[in-house]
Amino acid sequence: MNAIITLTTDFGLTDAYVAAMKGVILGINPRAKIIDICHTIAPQNISQAAFVLNTAYKFFPERTIHVVVVDPEVGTGRRAIILRTHGFDFIAPDNGVLSYIMEPFVKERLSPAQRQVTLPLELEAVSITKPEFWRTPVSSTFHGRDIFAPIAARLSLGTSPEEFGDVINSITLLPETRPYQESEDTLAGRIIHADRFGNLITNFKREDLPEEPFIVEVGNRSISGLRRTYAEGEGLLALIGSSGYLEIAVKGGSALDFLGVAVGSEVRIKLGKK
Amino acid sequence: MNAIITLTTDFGLTDAYVAAMKGVILGINPRAKIIDICHTIAPQNISQAAFVLNTAYKFFPERTIHVVVVDPEVGTGRRAIILRTHGFDFIAPDNGVLSYIMEPFVKERLSPAQRQVTLPLELEAVSITKPEFWRTPVSSTFHGRDIFAPIAARLSLGTSPEEFGDVINSITLLPETRPYQESEDTLAGRIIHADRFGNLITNFKREDLPEEPFIVEVGNRSISGLRRTYAEGEGLLALIGSSGYLEIAVKGGSALDFLGVAVGSEVRIKLGKK
Amino acid sequence: MNAIITLTTDFGLTDAYVAAMKGVILGINPRAKIIDICHTIAPQNISQAAFVLNTAYKFFPERTIHVVVVDPEVGTGRRAIILRTHGFDFIAPDNGVLSYIMEPFVKERLSPAQRQVTLPLELEAVSITKPEFWRTPVSSTFHGRDIFAPIAARLSLGTSPEEFGDVINSITLLPETRPYQESEDTLAGRIIHADRFGNLITNFKREDLPEEPFIVEVGNRSISGLRRTYAEGEGLLALIGSSGYLEIAVKGGSALDFLGVAVGSEVRIKLGKK
Repeated sequence: MNAIITLTTDFGLTDAYVAAMKGVILGINPRAKIIDICHTIAPQNISQAAFVLNTAYKFFPERTIHVVVVDPEVGTGRRAIILRTHGFDFIAPDNGVLSYIMEPFVKERLSPAQRQVTLPLELEAVSITKPEFWRTPVSSTFHGRDIFAPIAARLSLGTSPEEFGDVINSITLLPETRPYQESEDTLAGRIIHADRFGNLITNFKREDLPEEPFIVEVGNRSISGLRRTYAEGEGLLALIGSSGYLEIAVKGGSALDFLGVAVGSEVRIKLGKK
Repeated sequence: MNAIITLTTDFGLTDAYVAAMKGVILGINPRAKIIDICHTIAPQNISQAAFVLNTAYKFFPERTIHVVVVDPEVGTGRRAIILRTHGFDFIAPDNGVLSYIMEPFVKERLSPAQRQVTLPLELEAVSITKPEFWRTPVSSTFHGRDIFAPIAARLSLGTSPEEFGDVINSITLLPETRPYQESEDTLAGRIIHADRFGNLITNFKREDLPEEPFIVEVGNRSISGLRRTYAEGEGLLALIGSSGYLEIAVKGGSALDFLGVAVGSEVRIKLGKK
Repeated sequence: MNAIITLTTDFGLTDAYVAAMKGVILGINPRAKIIDICHTIAPQNISQAAFVLNTAYKFFPERTIHVVVVDPEVGTGRRAIILRTHGFDFIAPDNGVLSYIMEPFVKERLSPAQRQVTLPLELEAVSITKPEFWRTPVSSTFHGRDIFAPIAARLSLGTSPEEFGDVINSITLLPETRPYQESEDTLAGRIIHADRFGNLITNFKREDLPEEPFIVEVGNRSISGLRRTYAEGEGLLALIGSSGYLEIAVKGGSALDFLGVAVGSEVRIKLGKK
């Protein structure tokens, strides 16, 4: 079957870890189409991997299998899971890296500390426990190659998730990262990603934003209202980026360099005009 | 159809923008073969993208579709085009990034300022204007994913270019970048690219060079004649590189570091011996 | 035929050299599946390429064709070869880059200076000499595109190695790099690779190690015994990595940074306890 399997890892580009996974997949399903999403996730940075996956997974055809290997606790007792949604299958360690995937399905507002949520009925998840389909011997440091890759290949050939382990009814999420109402006229959020152009992606979605007029405060600067493209206006600007989040950009330059901020820095939306 | 679609962008390797484009393409043509040409073009560097595309496109089979997304003016009124040559289709913003592709077809010598050329009769070009085949809603910042990718996929399935917009009869070129005769015994050109090994590629083609003997002047150094390989001779050397351009190299080292020059630096060919 | 062809080069990610090779391959075998192993081998670093290839090649399906282009002597008289083992075909310059591939087949212990070994009977090798299948004209600096790529594509279509040149009976190896017995209770080896996480891979294989207890000495530190995963214990630790070699790691950090050592640094195994 010509199934698509995507890979998102923190393996970098100077080793052959990614290629080893591809070799294993093709040994089981020679017709699998393997697509790289990103391999330069900062080492063991789960929240970055979660965000990057979120900006790409939904543009793939239905039934694409998305594999994520950002796995600081590999070889310990941490669970590895298969999550099946109506559109896709995900194979990943159960460490919060699928938090954005879960967002449409989790109705209640989470506390900053909450980490486990009960799985909604429309989703199916399995804890990977049955070693029949793993490579042997399993390396205790490289489950991507020895467990995730062969399971992705088998899934792509039609094996059901339950063949690989026990159905589970909860999943781990990252601590709450949505913006919140800080005062009557202020929403507080933060920068969750800086892309290659130095554009700063915040955790405000389009639907989180109030009606204009409002100002965006970031790194001791304030920006009035939204532009539509990077090329509009002059200097520092705010717009809704291609993933649906509020972005801070500098026309023809890098907002990251210009503002001297970082991923995690605070961003505020204040009602009214400058 | 097993068509080949190549991608050349300045999206870098740390985001999932490229993967999103691939997902969109495979959703429309699951059998497309997508090949990366380069994604580390310096942000918004049109001339670098033009050069890198030029060193690869012609080695692909006929009817390969080459997509270029280096697009500083995305979301403004800039045209996006499909260019069909006898061998290939190109999808790109009309900002000069296809200048080297046009070179074999443009007979007249351009002035340094000229930017628009009339399209020769043997070529066909279309301005992308019809939104029927675009993703909706179209992001105003990511036409690569929402316009170029679906059009590439449709072209790969056999749709004609004219289905996507209006036939046009001119195209934008970068300002003239060919070497010129500076004096009776001197040709003046420049460095247009530095590769990973620190080899400096100039804009002199093999056919631009006079009969030997001549010397190559670059960065206050002069080099006598041409070598055949990087391993010949000692130290600084000049040769015709694999793309057909005069290159400056250092045996076992980096000419870029050794000479302290940069892309854009001047190179001169002087008749005679040292 | 849906053959798999892998590529390992030092071409980097900022040029289109790799893409040119892929274009040539697909022009000859449109159904070839081309997989990147690594393109960020340090320029002309044969031993790094040899190691990286070794960590990936064996995970691919049988009859995969592995192409290596790390070729400081391209265009000189150096041989280029096809090596056929029971599992795979390799196409590479004959400069030692296939040393790890040869390891299971070379029984005698090599001296540090020895470079040529007689090919065992179970292997077949050919010196690439017949230009019929090369691209013309052959660039003297880019045999990857003009010789290796078309030969890989032809091999993937079933052409026999002998069609491309003369059978040879020796092959070049890197100087001996296995650990050795330095004194009665001490084995001496070295660091052969640092991966993206700063894990240091040594040239001790699992079977080179004595029974515990032993201590690992590296960079003025000593480590007692082996852990099973990166997440076990605290601080500096030693374990058998996913490629079967002794690795030095730091829990949640970089052993490379922590120890201030480098590829090539000495590592010792001493019998007994701290």
